[in-house]
Amino acid sequence: MKINKGVEWAAHACSLLGPLWPDKGLPLSALAEFHELPEAYMAKQMQALSRAGIVKGGRGRNGFYVLSKSPKEITLLDILLAVDGNEPMFVCTEIRQNGPCAQASEDCTSPCGIAAHFARAERQYRASLEKIDLESLNAGVISDLSPDNLRDAADWLSENHRTLG
Amino acid sequence: MKINKGVEWAAHACSLLGPLWPDKGLPLSALAEFHELPEAYMAKQMQALSRAGIVKGGRGRNGFYVLSKSPKEITLLDILLAVDGNEPMFVCTEIRQNGPCAQASEDCTSPCGIAAHFARAERQYRASLEKIDLESLNAGVISDLSPDNLRDAADWLSENHRTLG
Repeated sequence: MKINKGVEWAAHACSLLGPLWPDKGLPLSALAEFHELPEAYMAKQMQALSRAGIVKGGRGRNGFYVLSKSPKEITLLDILLAVDGNEPMFVCTEIRQNGPCAQASEDCTSPCGIAAHFARAERQYRASLEKIDLESLNAGVISDLSPDNLRDAADWLSENHRTLG
Repeated sequence: MKINKGVEWAAHACSLLGPLWPDKGLPLSALAEFHELPEAYMAKQMQALSRAGIVKGGRGRNGFYVLSKSPKEITLLDILLAVDGNEPMFVCTEIRQNGPCAQASEDCTSPCGIAAHFARAERQYRASLEKIDLESLNAGVISDLSPDNLRDAADWLSENHRTLG
Protein backbone atom coordinates (compact mmCIF):
# COMPACT_ATOMS: atom_id res chain seq x y z
CA MET A 1 0.00 0.00 0.00
CA LYS A 2 1.36 3.34 -1.01
CA ILE A 3 0.52 6.81 0.13
CA ASN A 4 -0.27 9.24 -2.71
CA LYS A 5 2.98 11.02 -3.60
CA GLY A 6 1.17 14.33 -3.35
CA VAL A 7 1.19 13.96 0.45
CA GLU A 8 4.93 14.65 0.55
CA TRP A 9 4.48 17.73 -1.62
CA ALA A 10 1.50 19.00 0.34
CA ALA A 11 3.31 18.52 3.65
CA HIS A 12 6.32 20.49 2.40
CA ALA A 13 4.04 23.24 1.09
CA CYS A 14 2.28 23.53 4.47
CA SER A 15 5.65 23.55 6.19
CA LEU A 16 6.70 26.48 4.00
CA LEU A 17 3.48 28.38 4.70
CA GLY A 18 3.79 27.81 8.45
CA PRO A 19 6.15 30.71 9.30
CA LEU A 20 4.01 33.08 7.16
CA TRP A 21 0.78 32.48 9.05
CA PRO A 22 -1.56 34.29 9.82
CA ASP A 23 -1.46 37.11 7.28
CA LYS A 24 1.11 36.09 4.68
CA GLY A 25 1.25 33.42 2.03
CA LEU A 26 2.75 32.31 -1.25
CA PRO A 27 1.43 32.13 -4.81
CA LEU A 28 1.16 28.73 -6.43
CA SER A 29 4.09 29.49 -8.72
CA ALA A 30 6.38 30.12 -5.75
CA LEU A 31 5.24 26.99 -3.92
CA ALA A 32 6.01 24.97 -7.05
CA GLU A 33 9.31 26.76 -7.66
CA PHE A 34 10.57 26.24 -4.11
CA HIS A 35 10.15 22.50 -4.42
CA GLU A 36 11.01 22.37 -8.14
CA LEU A 37 7.69 20.68 -8.84
CA PRO A 38 5.36 21.03 -11.85
CA GLU A 39 2.88 23.80 -11.10
CA ALA A 40 -0.13 21.77 -12.28
CA TYR A 41 0.65 18.99 -9.85
CA MET A 42 1.36 21.40 -7.00
CA ALA A 43 -2.02 23.01 -7.81
CA LYS A 44 -3.76 19.68 -7.36
CA GLN A 45 -2.35 19.25 -3.85
CA MET A 46 -3.18 22.83 -2.88
CA GLN A 47 -6.77 22.33 -4.05
CA ALA A 48 -7.00 19.21 -1.89
CA LEU A 49 -5.64 21.17 1.10
CA SER A 50 -8.11 23.95 0.37
CA ARG A 51 -11.09 21.55 0.22
CA ALA A 52 -10.01 20.21 3.61
CA GLY A 53 -9.90 23.72 5.10
CA ILE A 54 -6.13 23.66 5.68
CA VAL A 55 -5.29 26.50 3.30
CA LYS A 56 -7.31 29.26 1.75
CA GLY A 57 -6.96 31.66 -1.17
CA GLY A 58 -4.83 30.88 -4.16
CA ARG A 59 -7.37 31.80 -6.83
CA GLY A 60 -6.84 34.25 -9.63
CA ARG A 61 -3.84 35.82 -11.27
CA ASN A 62 -2.64 37.52 -8.11
CA GLY A 63 -3.93 34.91 -5.73
CA PHE A 64 -1.84 33.21 -3.09
CA TYR A 65 -2.23 30.51 -0.50
CA VAL A 66 -2.33 31.18 3.24
CA LEU A 67 -2.83 28.65 6.02
CA SER A 68 -6.48 28.71 7.15
CA LYS A 69 -5.60 28.19 10.78
CA SER A 70 -2.73 28.21 13.20
CA PRO A 71 0.14 25.77 12.49
CA LYS A 72 -0.63 24.36 15.94
CA GLU A 73 -4.06 23.29 14.71
CA ILE A 74 -2.87 21.52 11.54
CA THR A 75 -1.49 18.00 11.91
CA LEU A 76 0.28 15.62 9.56
CA LEU A 77 -2.83 13.45 9.79
CA ASP A 78 -4.96 16.34 8.48
CA ILE A 79 -2.59 16.71 5.52
CA LEU A 80 -2.53 12.97 4.83
CA LEU A 81 -6.33 12.66 4.85
CA ALA A 82 -6.76 15.83 2.77
CA VAL A 83 -4.58 14.49 -0.04
CA ASP A 84 -4.82 10.72 0.27
CA GLY A 85 -8.47 10.47 1.30
CA ASN A 86 -10.15 9.21 4.45
CA GLU A 87 -10.88 5.64 3.39
CA PRO A 88 -9.55 2.92 5.70
CA MET A 89 -6.47 1.03 4.47
CA PHE A 90 -8.04 -2.35 5.11
CA VAL A 91 -11.49 -2.91 3.66
CA CYS A 92 -13.39 -5.91 5.04
CA THR A 93 -15.62 -7.54 2.45
CA GLU A 94 -17.22 -9.85 5.04
CA ILE A 95 -16.08 -13.08 3.43
CA ARG A 96 -17.03 -14.82 6.68
CA GLN A 97 -20.58 -14.57 5.30
CA ASN A 98 -19.60 -16.61 2.22
CA GLY A 99 -19.30 -20.31 1.48
CA PRO A 100 -20.48 -23.60 2.96
CA CYS A 101 -20.05 -22.44 6.58
CA ALA A 102 -21.23 -18.88 6.02
CA GLN A 103 -21.97 -16.93 9.16
CA ALA A 104 -25.45 -15.45 9.12
CA SER A 105 -25.43 -11.69 8.68
CA GLU A 106 -27.51 -11.30 11.86
CA ASP A 107 -24.68 -13.02 13.78
CA CYS A 108 -22.11 -10.57 12.37
CA THR A 109 -22.96 -7.61 14.59
CA SER A 110 -19.34 -6.96 15.56
CA PRO A 111 -16.53 -6.58 13.01
CA CYS A 112 -14.65 -9.66 11.83
CA GLY A 113 -11.65 -10.25 14.11
CA ILE A 114 -9.21 -9.81 11.22
CA ALA A 115 -10.74 -6.46 10.25
CA ALA A 116 -10.78 -5.35 13.89
CA HIS A 117 -7.02 -5.91 14.25
CA PHE A 118 -6.27 -3.98 11.06
CA ALA A 119 -8.56 -1.17 12.21
CA ARG A 120 -6.74 -0.97 15.55
CA ALA A 121 -3.37 -0.77 13.79
CA GLU A 122 -4.67 2.01 11.56
CA ARG A 123 -5.95 3.95 14.58
CA GLN A 124 -2.42 3.78 16.02
CA TYR A 125 -0.96 4.94 12.71
CA ARG A 126 -3.32 7.88 12.58
CA ALA A 127 -2.82 8.73 16.26
CA SER A 128 0.93 8.94 15.67
CA LEU A 129 0.48 11.43 12.81
CA GLU A 130 -2.17 13.36 14.72
CA LYS A 131 0.40 14.18 17.41
CA ILE A 132 2.58 16.07 14.92
CA ASP A 133 1.33 19.58 14.33
CA LEU A 134 2.87 21.93 11.81
CA GLU A 135 4.55 23.99 14.51
CA SER A 136 6.46 21.06 15.97
CA LEU A 137 7.13 19.70 12.49
CA ASN A 138 8.71 22.99 11.49
CA ALA A 139 10.76 23.22 14.67
CA GLY A 140 12.34 19.92 13.61
CA VAL A 141 12.75 20.90 9.95
CA ILE A 142 14.41 24.20 10.89
CA SER A 143 16.77 22.56 13.35
CA ASP A 144 17.97 20.31 10.51
CA LEU A 145 18.90 23.26 8.25
CA SER A 146 22.42 24.53 7.95
CA PRO A 147 22.87 28.24 8.82
CA ASP A 148 23.40 29.04 5.11
CA ASN A 149 20.30 27.15 4.15
CA LEU A 150 18.21 28.81 6.83
CA ARG A 151 19.32 32.25 5.59
CA ASP A 152 18.60 31.32 1.96
CA ALA A 153 15.12 30.13 2.86
CA ALA A 154 14.40 33.23 4.97
CA ASP A 155 15.57 35.48 2.10
CA TRP A 156 13.51 33.56 -0.42
CA LEU A 157 10.37 33.75 1.76
CA SER A 158 10.96 37.46 2.26
CA GLU A 159 11.17 38.02 -1.51
CA ASN A 160 8.29 35.80 -2.53
CA HIS A 161 5.62 36.15 0.11
CA ARG A 162 2.43 38.13 -0.32
CA THR A 163 0.48 39.82 2.44
CA LEU A 164 -3.29 39.72 2.93
CA GLY A 165 -4.79 43.10 2.08
CA MET B 1 -3.81 4.20 0.44
CA LYS B 2 -5.38 0.81 0.17
CA ILE B 3 -4.15 -2.58 1.27
CA ASN B 4 -4.26 -5.24 -1.44
CA LYS B 5 -7.61 -7.06 -1.12
CA GLY B 6 -5.76 -10.36 -1.18
CA VAL B 7 -4.59 -9.67 2.39
CA GLU B 8 -8.11 -10.30 3.71
CA TRP B 9 -8.33 -13.55 1.75
CA ALA B 10 -4.86 -14.71 2.80
CA ALA B 11 -5.56 -13.92 6.47
CA HIS B 12 -8.78 -15.96 6.37
CA ALA B 13 -6.98 -18.83 4.64
CA CYS B 14 -4.26 -18.86 7.32
CA SER B 15 -6.92 -18.69 10.02
CA LEU B 16 -8.56 -21.77 8.51
CA LEU B 17 -5.26 -23.66 8.31
CA GLY B 18 -4.39 -22.78 11.92
CA PRO B 19 -6.33 -25.55 13.69
CA LEU B 20 -4.93 -28.13 11.21
CA TRP B 21 -1.27 -27.41 11.94
CA PRO B 22 1.22 -29.18 12.10
CA ASP B 23 0.35 -32.22 9.96
CA LYS B 24 -2.90 -31.36 8.21
CA GLY B 25 -3.89 -28.93 5.54
CA LEU B 26 -6.35 -28.07 2.79
CA PRO B 27 -6.22 -28.21 -1.00
CA LEU B 28 -6.52 -24.96 -2.90
CA SER B 29 -10.00 -25.89 -4.11
CA ALA B 30 -11.23 -26.24 -0.52
CA LEU B 31 -9.63 -22.95 0.59
CA ALA B 32 -11.35 -21.20 -2.31
CA GLU B 33 -14.68 -22.99 -1.71
CA PHE B 34 -14.77 -22.17 2.01
CA HIS B 35 -14.52 -18.47 1.27
CA GLU B 36 -16.50 -18.64 -2.00
CA LEU B 37 -13.59 -17.06 -3.82
CA PRO B 38 -12.29 -17.68 -7.36
CA GLU B 39 -9.67 -20.42 -7.22
CA ALA B 40 -7.21 -18.54 -9.43
CA TYR B 41 -7.21 -15.55 -7.11
CA MET B 42 -6.97 -17.69 -3.98
CA ALA B 43 -4.00 -19.42 -5.68
CA LYS B 44 -2.24 -16.08 -6.06
CA GLN B 45 -2.50 -15.35 -2.34
CA MET B 46 -1.37 -18.86 -1.39
CA GLN B 47 1.68 -18.49 -3.64
CA ALA B 48 2.53 -15.21 -1.93
CA LEU B 49 2.20 -16.89 1.49
CA SER B 50 4.36 -19.75 0.25
CA ARG B 51 7.08 -17.40 -1.01
CA ALA B 52 7.11 -15.78 2.42
CA GLY B 53 7.51 -19.14 4.16
CA ILE B 54 4.12 -18.99 5.88
CA VAL B 55 2.62 -22.01 4.12
CA LYS B 56 4.11 -24.94 2.24
CA GLY B 57 2.88 -27.54 -0.21
CA GLY B 58 -0.08 -26.97 -2.45
CA ARG B 59 1.53 -28.15 -5.67
CA GLY B 60 0.20 -30.84 -7.96
CA ARG B 61 -3.16 -32.49 -8.46
CA ASN B 62 -3.29 -33.91 -4.95
CA GLY B 63 -1.36 -31.13 -3.31
CA PHE B 64 -2.57 -29.20 -0.30
CA TYR B 65 -1.41 -26.28 1.81
CA VAL B 66 -0.15 -26.64 5.37
CA LEU B 67 1.15 -23.89 7.64
CA SER B 68 4.96 -23.91 7.58
CA LYS B 69 5.26 -23.07 11.25
CA SER B 70 3.29 -22.84 14.44
CA PRO B 71 0.31 -20.45 14.45
CA LYS B 72 2.09 -18.76 17.37
CA GLU B 73 4.94 -17.85 15.02
CA ILE B 74 2.82 -16.31 12.26
CA THR B 75 1.56 -12.77 12.74
CA LEU B 76 -0.89 -10.58 10.86
CA LEU B 77 2.12 -8.44 9.94
CA ASP B 78 3.77 -11.46 8.28
CA ILE B 79 0.61 -12.04 6.24
CA LEU B 80 0.29 -8.37 5.30
CA LEU B 81 3.90 -8.12 4.12
CA ALA B 82 3.71 -11.44 2.26
CA VAL B 83 0.75 -10.32 0.17
CA ASP B 84 1.03 -6.54 0.09
CA GLY B 85 4.81 -6.26 -0.09
CA ASN B 86 7.36 -4.75 2.26
CA GLU B 87 7.67 -1.28 0.73
CA PRO B 88 7.10 1.64 3.10
CA MET B 89 3.76 3.45 2.73
CA PHE B 90 5.42 6.85 2.57
CA VAL B 91 8.23 7.24 0.08
CA CYS B 92 10.42 10.31 0.55
CA THR B 93 11.72 11.70 -2.73
CA GLU B 94 14.00 14.20 -0.97
CA ILE B 95 12.36 17.29 -2.40
CA ARG B 96 14.25 19.28 0.23
CA GLN B 97 17.21 18.87 -2.15
CA ASN B 98 15.29 20.67 -4.93
CA GLY B 99 14.73 24.29 -5.85
CA PRO B 100 16.29 27.68 -5.07
CA CYS B 101 17.01 26.82 -1.41
CA ALA B 102 17.99 23.22 -2.03
CA GLN B 103 19.70 21.51 0.89
CA ALA B 104 23.02 20.00 -0.11
CA SER B 105 22.92 16.21 -0.21
CA GLU B 106 25.88 16.06 2.19
CA ASP B 107 23.77 17.98 4.74
CA CYS B 108 20.93 15.47 4.42
CA THR B 109 22.45 12.69 6.49
CA SER B 110 19.32 12.18 8.60
CA PRO B 111 15.87 11.62 7.09
CA CYS B 112 13.69 14.61 6.28
CA GLY B 113 11.53 15.42 9.32
CA ILE B 114 8.33 14.77 7.38
CA ALA B 115 9.52 11.34 6.25
CA ALA B 116 10.71 10.54 9.79
CA HIS B 117 7.24 11.18 11.25
CA PHE B 118 5.55 9.01 8.62
CA ALA B 119 8.12 6.26 9.22
CA ARG B 120 7.44 6.37 12.98
CA ALA B 121 3.69 6.08 12.38
CA GLU B 122 4.29 3.11 10.10
CA ARG B 123 6.45 1.42 12.72
CA GLN B 124 3.55 1.73 15.16
CA TYR B 125 1.15 0.31 12.56
CA ARG B 126 3.40 -2.65 11.97
CA ALA B 127 4.06 -3.19 15.68
CA SER B 128 0.31 -3.39 16.29
CA LEU B 129 -0.11 -6.12 13.65
CA GLU B 130 3.02 -7.92 14.80
CA LYS B 131 1.43 -8.47 18.21
CA ILE B 132 -1.39 -10.55 16.69
CA ASP B 133 -0.34 -14.11 16.04
CA LEU B 134 -2.56 -16.65 14.32
CA GLU B 135 -3.28 -18.45 17.57
CA SER B 136 -4.68 -15.38 19.32
CA LEU B 137 -6.43 -14.30 16.10
CA ASN B 138 -8.20 -17.65 15.93
CA ALA B 139 -9.16 -17.58 19.59
CA GLY B 140 -11.03 -14.36 18.81
CA VAL B 141 -12.54 -15.64 15.56
CA ILE B 142 -13.79 -18.84 17.25
CA SER B 143 -15.29 -16.95 20.17
CA ASP B 144 -17.34 -14.94 17.66
CA LEU B 145 -18.89 -18.04 16.05
CA SER B 146 -22.32 -19.30 16.97
CA PRO B 147 -22.44 -22.92 18.25
CA ASP B 148 -24.07 -24.03 14.97
CA ASN B 149 -21.44 -22.26 12.93
CA LEU B 150 -18.61 -23.71 14.96
CA ARG B 151 -20.01 -27.23 14.42
CA ASP B 152 -20.47 -26.61 10.67
CA ALA B 153 -16.88 -25.40 10.35
CA ALA B 154 -15.50 -28.33 12.37
CA ASP B 155 -17.46 -30.79 10.21
CA TRP B 156 -16.31 -29.11 7.02
CA LEU B 157 -12.65 -29.17 8.13
CA SER B 158 -12.99 -32.80 9.10
CA GLU B 159 -14.35 -33.67 5.64
CA ASN B 160 -11.97 -31.58 3.59
CA HIS B 161 -8.59 -31.72 5.31
CA ARG B 162 -5.68 -33.81 4.05
CA THR B 163 -2.94 -35.26 6.22
CA LEU B 164 0.79 -35.17 5.48
CA GLY B 165 2.47 -38.36 4.33
